[in-house]
Amino acid sequence: MKNQNRILLGHGSGGKLSHRLVSDLILKYFNHIELAKLNDAARLSFIGENLVFSTDSYVVDPIFFPGGDIGKLAICGTVNDVAMMGAKPLYLSVGLIIEEGFALSDLELILDSMRVSAAEADIEIVTGDTKVVPKGAADKIFINTAGVGVSFSGINLSGQNAQVGDKIIINGTIADHGITVMARRGGLELDLEIKTDSAPLNHMIREILNKVPNVHVMRDPTRGGVATTLNEIAGQSEVGIKLTEKNIPVSEQVNAVCEILGLDPLYIANEGKVLVFSPADHAEDVLSVMRTDKYGQNACIIGEVVNEPRGKVYLETMIGGQRMVDMLAGEQLPRIC
Amino acid sequence: MKNQNRILLGHGSGGKLSHRLVSDLILKYFNHIELAKLNDAARLSFIGENLVFSTDSYVVDPIFFPGGDIGKLAICGTVNDVAMMGAKPLYLSVGLIIEEGFALSDLELILDSMRVSAAEADIEIVTGDTKVVPKGAADKIFINTAGVGVSFSGINLSGQNAQVGDKIIINGTIADHGITVMARRGGLELDLEIKTDSAPLNHMIREILNKVPNVHVMRDPTRGGVATTLNEIAGQSEVGIKLTEKNIPVSEQVNAVCEILGLDPLYIANEGKVLVFSPADHAEDVLSVMRTDKYGQNACIIGEVVNEPRGKVYLETMIGGQRMVDMLAGEQLPRIC
Repeated sequence: MKNQNRILLGHGSGGKLSHRLVSDLILKYFNHIELAKLNDAARLSFIGENLVFSTDSYVVDPIFFPGGDIGKLAICGTVNDVAMMGAKPLYLSVGLIIEEGFALSDLELILDSMRVSAAEADIEIVTGDTKVVPKGAADKIFINTAGVGVSFSGINLSGQNAQVGDKIIINGTIADHGITVMARRGGLELDLEIKTDSAPLNHMIREILNKVPNVHVMRDPTRGGVATTLNEIAGQSEVGIKLTEKNIPVSEQVNAVCEILGLDPLYIANEGKVLVFSPADHAEDVLSVMRTDKYGQNACIIGEVVNEPRGKVYLETMIGGQRMVDMLAGEQLPRIC
Repeated sequence: MKNQNRILLGHGSGGKLSHRLVSDLILKYFNHIELAKLNDAARLSFIGENLVFSTDSYVVDPIFFPGGDIGKLAICGTVNDVAMMGAKPLYLSVGLIIEEGFALSDLELILDSMRVSAAEADIEIVTGDTKVVPKGAADKIFINTAGVGVSFSGINLSGQNAQVGDKIIINGTIADHGITVMARRGGLELDLEIKTDSAPLNHMIREILNKVPNVHVMRDPTRGGVATTLNEIAGQSEVGIKLTEKNIPVSEQVNAVCEILGLDPLYIANEGKVLVFSPADHAEDVLSVMRTDKYGQNACIIGEVVNEPRGKVYLETMIGGQRMVDMLAGEQLPRIC
């Protein structure tokens, strides 16, 4: 196959090809133990404390969409990655790559959006870099952020820690971000009220950990959606995961768009959601904390960790059947974040 | 002027327009005290210690050139930015933005080059992210790195610390990187042996600080070259800087290319050079440490800090005259790093 030796869009999807690229190629060269864990951030020793460090680049198209823009994503995404390791995000770096000819007024909108999100998340933007490339060498603007945080003591979160019996809790409806961007990009002339769920979740996460310090896993289901993230965790922890379709919150409008376009919301990106794996006897505590937070009003228990099949995810469907839920294969929607 | 409201290539040059973009626009939204200092990295409090944090994106074109590639630049550049704050670089993040269709074999060359440079610098790549954009939405590959380090105690380096009487020392010939990339890009059919000076300088810097802990400023003259970096420091410290042309090391071949193309080597980017501002009575100590390092064989004292004119740089020319050396204005060479 001619394409076998080239980068494909699917390599950036967060799904199967992404995982293969990281596992087969990138880890061949960079083999730090924290990197190999395939968490969204690294937990590192720093003068006896645990420092959490994470990075993401944002290449979303379009750069403005209902409820947010590339700047909001760039702050919230990295804040969330640090927070999901059980850490307080402290500092952010910002790297801008801008196409020649980009409107300064758009840049100002984006910077202001970053300022607002950083203030909400209570994180400081402390260092940065700006590169400009000739017209046509990049599409408008790409933003990289890296985040540094300090671990809460006594917390041990990792994708490797899921245990049989854990309840899986999400803080609200899925697929809002991906469908919002897709609708805007495709110029869908539907009268939609959907908007991105992009939000900094660090305050809610801290409250959850205050109340239930022994939750096992937290991760944000971004690229590749809930299905892909749960497959990652099932693989890392060598457990099975059972999802209950009727409990998975999807808004009516998102559901309608998914049906029209033939998309499965389980594979669509979220930017303000967290999946929490909690011991069963604390699941209600997690739910109650989420529901008191503005980003957790529609929190639900959507599944649980089971013995078999190891490393796999399956869904109990509305009509009582079962189907396997694999990782995203290929690329459903490029440049979603 | 129509272009006034748009991003120009010069906004990414590291020169005057870059400074105006940061000062007038970016600092309007992000006003952290460390960011406003306009150093290449931030020095931050972390559980009572000083953490140094820096980021850079790399967009060099071409991505391979004599002596290096975009991967080597991405490691060494950020390592150097952290080191120049008087810190030991500990951890790196890597964010890749790759164009669809990019050859995996080229990606492997770049990753291997990053591995080699990280090993030499003794820094660990601990977290990362890969995005793929459709063909035409980016030019081959862009790399962001962010670096975390820990300050050496008792060291206080900043662009604001230059003092009248300081000697200004550089660890070797200038303009090698920029001319190498320019020659490769322009397809100059000269039989040149020049290559990039890209190198991790952290070990040499640590030795300098061991021997002379009271040096005042260290900075790497990258985009915009020695002239722009010294202007930045003159402005930050509100001092004058006198350069002595005959002492500035430029290789014969680089000099020849500069004459042919009408370029001033003082404005050409370096990727393995450090400018050290040292109290005069310790300048020989700095020189001797540099000269025992493989990246400092051609170290020289090239100038000194003077009272007047404040915030400006001037050159004593070979023929005994004086001329002002301003910051780079506009863009001499886009995508040099």
